[in-house]
Amino acid sequence: MKKFLNDPKQFVPEMLRGIALANPDTITYVPEYNLIMRSDAPRHDKVSIVQGSGSGHEPAHVMVVGPGMLDAACPGDVFAAPPSDYVYETTKRLASDKGVLLLVNNYTGDKMAFEMAAELSEADDIKVATLFINDDVAVTDSLYTVGRRGVAGNFFVIKCCGALAEEGAELEDVVAIGEKVNSVTRTMGIALTACTPPAKGSPLFDLGDDEMEVGVGIHGEPGRRRAKLTSADEIVDELLHAVVSDLPFEKGDRVALMINGLGGTPISELYLLYGIAAQKLADQGITIARSYVGNYCTSLEMAGASLTLVRLDDEIERLLEAPASTVVRIF
Amino acid sequence: MKKFLNDPKQFVPEMLRGIALANPDTITYVPEYNLIMRSDAPRHDKVSIVQGSGSGHEPAHVMVVGPGMLDAACPGDVFAAPPSDYVYETTKRLASDKGVLLLVNNYTGDKMAFEMAAELSEADDIKVATLFINDDVAVTDSLYTVGRRGVAGNFFVIKCCGALAEEGAELEDVVAIGEKVNSVTRTMGIALTACTPPAKGSPLFDLGDDEMEVGVGIHGEPGRRRAKLTSADEIVDELLHAVVSDLPFEKGDRVALMINGLGGTPISELYLLYGIAAQKLADQGITIARSYVGNYCTSLEMAGASLTLVRLDDEIERLLEAPASTVVRIF
Repeated sequence: MKKFLNDPKQFVPEMLRGIALANPDTITYVPEYNLIMRSDAPRHDKVSIVQGSGSGHEPAHVMVVGPGMLDAACPGDVFAAPPSDYVYETTKRLASDKGVLLLVNNYTGDKMAFEMAAELSEADDIKVATLFINDDVAVTDSLYTVGRRGVAGNFFVIKCCGALAEEGAELEDVVAIGEKVNSVTRTMGIALTACTPPAKGSPLFDLGDDEMEVGVGIHGEPGRRRAKLTSADEIVDELLHAVVSDLPFEKGDRVALMINGLGGTPISELYLLYGIAAQKLADQGITIARSYVGNYCTSLEMAGASLTLVRLDDEIERLLEAPASTVVRIF
Repeated sequence: MKKFLNDPKQFVPEMLRGIALANPDTITYVPEYNLIMRSDAPRHDKVSIVQGSGSGHEPAHVMVVGPGMLDAACPGDVFAAPPSDYVYETTKRLASDKGVLLLVNNYTGDKMAFEMAAELSEADDIKVATLFINDDVAVTDSLYTVGRRGVAGNFFVIKCCGALAEEGAELEDVVAIGEKVNSVTRTMGIALTACTPPAKGSPLFDLGDDEMEVGVGIHGEPGRRRAKLTSADEIVDELLHAVVSDLPFEKGDRVALMINGLGGTPISELYLLYGIAAQKLADQGITIARSYVGNYCTSLEMAGASLTLVRLDDEIERLLEAPASTVVRIF
């Protein structure tokens, strides 16, 4: 295992401390609950948007806290759901007059933790809603999931919910936009290598030197098939076909296209994939109105990528365009 | 070799095409010269800022083209200087009434290409200046360098030159700020793995499963020493001591701190390093006024990181704060 690491058990807290130290004016860190929150939260003029999940997917979700995005994130340990009491304590701290929206990627452990926390919060008279994200078309049911998995497409749900919440919308309207975005968002990923959780110390799965896992999950869950590594053109063909045929996306659609890196793949390769996908979408008469290339939802240092399409309408496009800022930034 | 790739010879052009397709309104791509430029360049009310270098360091430099940053980048092939005629053609296209500033990381090949292009441009009566960046404290003279190497600290030179140029400053003033920033910027890096150039197909160097290269160059050049992999705490100690003692940075200094990923290291580990470095700087009475965590200047998919400090004054801090936008972005 080759990582920048002290004690594997302190990997998540040390990362969170780094986030807090890099953002002293805007971020509050509550170590007892792995909680990273906007320093100005809760704001009672807006719905609080919260997401938690296992760690290891950074920048999701602890680094997408900020105006127009999440009000808080409460991660678990690497690839482990946050304990329900972490989520409950987070919900209490984020309780605003307008309510709290809990965004949850669809994994059984996360679902249980967030549903329990939501029940406890409601018993405290906190107005709370829960929304599950399941954009991964690769498989139905998986190692940790009943139904479809939530992966990089969660970025678009967060962005639109965050933008509408920032405008002062009511909880039910923020839930409605989140459900709409989730319903038109589709993703599939591919792994070129496995990844190594710090506490495990060895790769999560074995992948031959000439193999790839098509449809991989962001915790290394099996996808649709194990295959010999092929060209970038063929890979994009397979990802694009899976995603486009699922909704389906059709000629005349306006879309957002995301090429998301899984952690160990350089951005040069992601732009190479983007160029191929963009050309193929143009050939199908599908218009890319917004593009996203980079690491959004990763799997530690896994080499790989996912492709996400979102079918846009005026409302979604307006919310994607709205200003936002996060922990992760260039300048 | 596990990469998203078609023909290794087309790796750079396919990446550049992806950049162009993702930014149809703001970026112009001139395939004959690997040239990525702002669509509104040259603007005669500002100095044009240009940087070229080998590819494989993305987002540097083709993805940091945009308002307040570079007007253009003309990369060579992976880890190879751009041909001097590419630089010359770039300079001709970017020639503005206020002149062209060529920023060059200090490598012998790049230096030759840019100096020759600058001479040809001057013969055409183009007002041109050249500025060499050499922030890497690890070694003096290296595989491809006489003197010190230019690495991730070039971001700060670009940012300050870009911001001052945007204000309409004269060429000599933009050169002066670039020289000042370079003179107060220091970096050292560390590799946990090698990287594989697409056309080579095998790792650039060998590094044992329990080894690290301290002071590595961004083309895999040897650093100060090969050592057994140690804890993140010890690594930060070594990088920080090398950088702080070089300028030297002193108690009472205000600084920018960058933890730059070399391509294959996830941002979670970079924030972990940041947290350690921030604490150690605070202990030394050095104040971090601005923080940068992420991939700025990479070495393909190399696992590793570098640490950069910049000593701030009011002018540098103001220019770092100025608005800017680039090809690489979150939203």
